Amino acid sequence: MSGKVYVGVDLGGTAIKVGLCDESGKLLQTYEGPTGAELGSDEVMERIAQYIRLLVEESPFKWEDVAGIGAGLAGFLDIPEGIVRFSPNLKWHDVPVKKILEQKLDKPVTIDNDANVAALGEAWSGAGAGISNVVCYTLGTGVGGGIIIGGKIYQGFAGMAGELGHMSVVPDLEAIQCGCGQMGCLETVSSATGIVRMARDAVQRGDKTSLAMIQNITAKDVFDAAKVGDEVALRIVNRAAYYIGRSMAAIAVVLNPQRFIVGGGVSKAGEILFQPIREIFRKYTPLQVQENVDIVPATLGNDAGIVGAAGLNLR
Amino acid sequence: MSGKVYVGVDLGGTAIKVGLCDESGKLLQTYEGPTGAELGSDEVMERIAQYIRLLVEESPFKWEDVAGIGAGLAGFLDIPEGIVRFSPNLKWHDVPVKKILEQKLDKPVTIDNDANVAALGEAWSGAGAGISNVVCYTLGTGVGGGIIIGGKIYQGFAGMAGELGHMSVVPDLEAIQCGCGQMGCLETVSSATGIVRMARDAVQRGDKTSLAMIQNITAKDVFDAAKVGDEVALRIVNRAAYYIGRSMAAIAVVLNPQRFIVGGGVSKAGEILFQPIREIFRKYTPLQVQENVDIVPATLGNDAGIVGAAGLNLR
Repeated sequence: MSGKVYVGVDLGGTAIKVGLCDESGKLLQTYEGPTGAELGSDEVMERIAQYIRLLVEESPFKWEDVAGIGAGLAGFLDIPEGIVRFSPNLKWHDVPVKKILEQKLDKPVTIDNDANVAALGEAWSGAGAGISNVVCYTLGTGVGGGIIIGGKIYQGFAGMAGELGHMSVVPDLEAIQCGCGQMGCLETVSSATGIVRMARDAVQRGDKTSLAMIQNITAKDVFDAAKVGDEVALRIVNRAAYYIGRSMAAIAVVLNPQRFIVGGGVSKAGEILFQPIREIFRKYTPLQVQENVDIVPATLGNDAGIVGAAGLNLR
Repeated sequence: MSGKVYVGVDLGGTAIKVGLCDESGKLLQTYEGPTGAELGSDEVMERIAQYIRLLVEESPFKWEDVAGIGAGLAGFLDIPEGIVRFSPNLKWHDVPVKKILEQKLDKPVTIDNDANVAALGEAWSGAGAGISNVVCYTLGTGVGGGIIIGGKIYQGFAGMAGELGHMSVVPDLEAIQCGCGQMGCLETVSSATGIVRMARDAVQRGDKTSLAMIQNITAKDVFDAAKVGDEVALRIVNRAAYYIGRSMAAIAVVLNPQRFIVGGGVSKAGEILFQPIREIFRKYTPLQVQENVDIVPATLGNDAGIVGAAGLNLR
């Protein structure tokens, strides 16, 4: 085999996943191993390098076919310098990931945050393939986002572009405090955490709902209950969808993207979530700004992170 | 004299202003004449060409020094094709401005809408000089906007990026309909028209305010009354400022611009407008997204349109 290939690294708290993509963003091969986070950053970095070498060895490609390596990470990053400033789940402070991996592997290394990387993956070869301006939401524990302009992640002035979970959308009198310290963030209502919180609140105050019979309510429980007509669950789903739709309407007049992509665990709920998002978006967006603009589910699932990380080295 | 120069055209309903800028965006020379809109588009196009020839003849530059011509226009435009689809104030339908001017003048011609062009002017050599990502508001009869990324106007998928006046920001129960057909647009409260409307409403319902003594209230009257302590006027100014600040907070987490620039007639009100805008922005924006981000008045005044139009041909 020949042609350039790109390595993507999805560095999680328990597992490191690495993958090889071709120039079209197709994921050809993957390798996965334990992170060993408890052994410290030196060991984790060594494992990443080892898994990447194994990945390429087991593939039909040669080491010299590898054009570059990208890694997606959670936490506060210095993206241009490739340094993890602080990672809460790995307990890292100031780890120069780019420098260490470049020394170990002798290939260009680029890092970026996990939501940006997932967005790039979807834009490259997922639900946004062939579209040049895309806005992605990742609805999970929090709400992440990524802005892709001309096939590249848009970072903004201080690398904070696409922090869609922290758009303040809930009116003051209804707002609760977000983990970021601010009031009324999208993440407080439209993340899995937000949906579970609303469900627990409903149960605790005695609202009549089938959710009261569940021990540890998950976001999936809420969607399942809504699908069979539980009105309390439906109200919660509609509230989560409402604020996503409102935030998309705000983004539409700023960036006029061609497509909004929604991924992450919560997005698996399907049409019961997407239909109200689309309705609210249509209602609060001027006609010319919504024409031929669509809102679609992500298609790469958990692979978006690896694919997007590999795509960080596209020129 | 030598070096490249750029011609900018500000095509208004009553006057055509043309200007010559150097490569740094400095406005060197201007020429102004009547539009003659009532004589039809052929005559208006001929006048533009004539004024540009006069402008260059009267300057120390030669015709071959002119690198390109740009024009800012109000209305619905096909920007890539350079066609005015519909201009309400000129009563034009499908006028191929780019093609006609290129034939008459044998120079590359680019057109864009007036708010985008004003934004580019400010970003090039006004309040945003030297800053690569800037968001501009123009507060006039309506609320216009422009997004400048890497020194270029960002158009979005259908040329609708930066339509900031049509962000739906007013809560449903407080919202009124905008000229665009949508409810609750920023323009309904934060434009001169919106401010005057709120003032008239207050007077009509008998609120105790010095504005009741004014025949034809202007936005300036409202700001002047607010400055001397009229509480009704102050409430109106704060409401206009509030929604601008909220819209900036929403934009900040999407694009993380380094600077917001506010121009247009309404912005001349000064600190009584800017102070509450900044307060609301700080309150509703996560700390990391507001660090080193500022909100400043435009500096080019009415010249922003000519300068930005000239800048359309920068490569």
